[in-house]
Amino acid sequence: MTEKDSSISCAIPNESSNDSSEKPAEIKADGSFNRQTNRFTTPFGNNLGELPVEAGRYRLLWSAACPWAHRAVIVRKILGLENTISVGKVSPLRPRIERVDWEFSLDKDSVDPVLGVQYVSEVYLNADSDYAGRPTVPVMVDLETKKAVNNDYFKLTNYFETVWSPFHKENAPDLYPEDLREDIDTLNEMIFHDVNNGVYKCGFAQSQEAYELAYDTLFARLDELEERLSTRRFLFGDIITDSDVRLYTTLVRFDAAYYTAFRTNRNLIREFTNLWGYARDLYQTIGFGETTDFDSIKRHYHLSITIDPGKGEVMILPKGPDTSVWLTEHNREKLSNHKEKFLIKG
Amino acid sequence: MTEKDSSISCAIPNESSNDSSEKPAEIKADGSFNRQTNRFTTPFGNNLGELPVEAGRYRLLWSAACPWAHRAVIVRKILGLENTISVGKVSPLRPRIERVDWEFSLDKDSVDPVLGVQYVSEVYLNADSDYAGRPTVPVMVDLETKKAVNNDYFKLTNYFETVWSPFHKENAPDLYPEDLREDIDTLNEMIFHDVNNGVYKCGFAQSQEAYELAYDTLFARLDELEERLSTRRFLFGDIITDSDVRLYTTLVRFDAAYYTAFRTNRNLIREFTNLWGYARDLYQTIGFGETTDFDSIKRHYHLSITIDPGKGEVMILPKGPDTSVWLTEHNREKLSNHKEKFLIKG
Repeated sequence: MTEKDSSISCAIPNESSNDSSEKPAEIKADGSFNRQTNRFTTPFGNNLGELPVEAGRYRLLWSAACPWAHRAVIVRKILGLENTISVGKVSPLRPRIERVDWEFSLDKDSVDPVLGVQYVSEVYLNADSDYAGRPTVPVMVDLETKKAVNNDYFKLTNYFETVWSPFHKENAPDLYPEDLREDIDTLNEMIFHDVNNGVYKCGFAQSQEAYELAYDTLFARLDELEERLSTRRFLFGDIITDSDVRLYTTLVRFDAAYYTAFRTNRNLIREFTNLWGYARDLYQTIGFGETTDFDSIKRHYHLSITIDPGKGEVMILPKGPDTSVWLTEHNREKLSNHKEKFLIKG
Repeated sequence: MTEKDSSISCAIPNESSNDSSEKPAEIKADGSFNRQTNRFTTPFGNNLGELPVEAGRYRLLWSAACPWAHRAVIVRKILGLENTISVGKVSPLRPRIERVDWEFSLDKDSVDPVLGVQYVSEVYLNADSDYAGRPTVPVMVDLETKKAVNNDYFKLTNYFETVWSPFHKENAPDLYPEDLREDIDTLNEMIFHDVNNGVYKCGFAQSQEAYELAYDTLFARLDELEERLSTRRFLFGDIITDSDVRLYTTLVRFDAAYYTAFRTNRNLIREFTNLWGYARDLYQTIGFGETTDFDSIKRHYHLSITIDPGKGEVMILPKGPDTSVWLTEHNREKLSNHKEKFLIKG
């Protein structure tokens, strides 16, 4: 399986029936988690059959809880696409109506003010009235038709970085330099399987063996990345790339959510020397910390996904950890030829 | 409430009915956890009406998971009472038959070889056929009658340390020196309410407010103890006392269990400088590490208490954390006038 044929998710795995004794559709026979395939993958571009690149044409739906959506919002911000692509934000707490959905309950009357919909599933059903997969974020919605047109979170940041370049702000950094693309793609595959999706494989495993395999793979990769970041400020040296965005979205959720909710409890990220400095360096860079919402992350993973309380049971939100430590000094500049904060900061 | 009138527990709170929408008997109206009162509190001693102090007369039932029972087993070992008081050990995984019980499923045929019982509840019912509380450990059982005679975990170590002294090994340390008893009792009260039982108050709270109050109190106390231990090797200086045993049993379960299962996630114990060195110092001292069973602790708190899986759901045991770090160098001897390992060490 390559990242390209797997799907986004900030969701509990799809259930195939109301009988919880049957395995959900995204759990394999050995108990391992297997993401659903993306449904809407038409590329953005200027060729026939591609989605036209037009300012004001699309709305990006996201949840602050979701790492797959967060990456798109970070890149949109870094590249200055805020006035080109609007965003609609759903609540981190997911209602279960007929299926688990995302709801615009942060908005007045629980309706997205532009699209006029209450649930993300509506734009999927607008596009395909038989759509039976999970309604996922991020999803790009065509404002002319109110249809979901692209939910390909793997490619989405790359589209923003390439074919959307006519709308980048002045002096926007190049997050996907041509001479590095092959290496970035290779690293992104690894980060996806073993880290981004790796934490979900731990959290959603339905056998002890599948869980432990995912756990061992996850921490082996984190150990490798810790080593890689001992001599480089960012994954490819002095510049921030698409790969850094992808790794960040998992690292920033790790201590506050995955360590406990997904049982990824060998080490906290704040116990790694280089990964912790690196993660804070990014957090303190424009586009990252300002789009990171720890409260939404905690409420989503602790209250919305992992706990299905019995009748009468009260939901308790863990109070820790202290997230103010994300603003502490990291001293990662010392690894950089730019002996200053990263240029795209503030 | 003083420690004296509250009860032991390694248990989910007692349920008052089968309707889970009603609050369990040990949950107050504000959602806070309120331990049941001890039932069998007749003291050991040589006075009329007291339980006679006799070698070979009693069996101490315990679970390696349970901090309240663990303290008695540590003190028994430190003082050399192994040949005076025998022990029966129950499984860390608790079956729910008519009520939540403790079972001798580690033994052949799931029966304690001395008492011939399968469940701890049996010795309680032998003592009182109407006993309706939780069957708890530790409990001292009179081998002549097979009746529970004392489940007063608060006083039990103090009995071992005082009236049981004729049976102490040669050169046994004094864990409860007369000139310190008042101070030890005062500190023990604090440790009980805010730390030992404090983690349970976090884990069993049935309101966000009750949980956060317990969490704040717990970490305020840990911060105080961290400070206290910056200049003293043990809580009362160079010697190990009853208070150290009590604090240890919570500290050693913290990272492996409470941090995740009871949501006590401000800091891991291994993130405190002094508490972490202190806890390892004790772990590496005779009586402590050898009676500490991380596997039982993890299985109890992660599989037996906190998770009540739905039909068909698989129970996953968290793989972390790495407990081999408990054997690392702590350098706490530098705080001691004895510039060596503590004398009672193996």
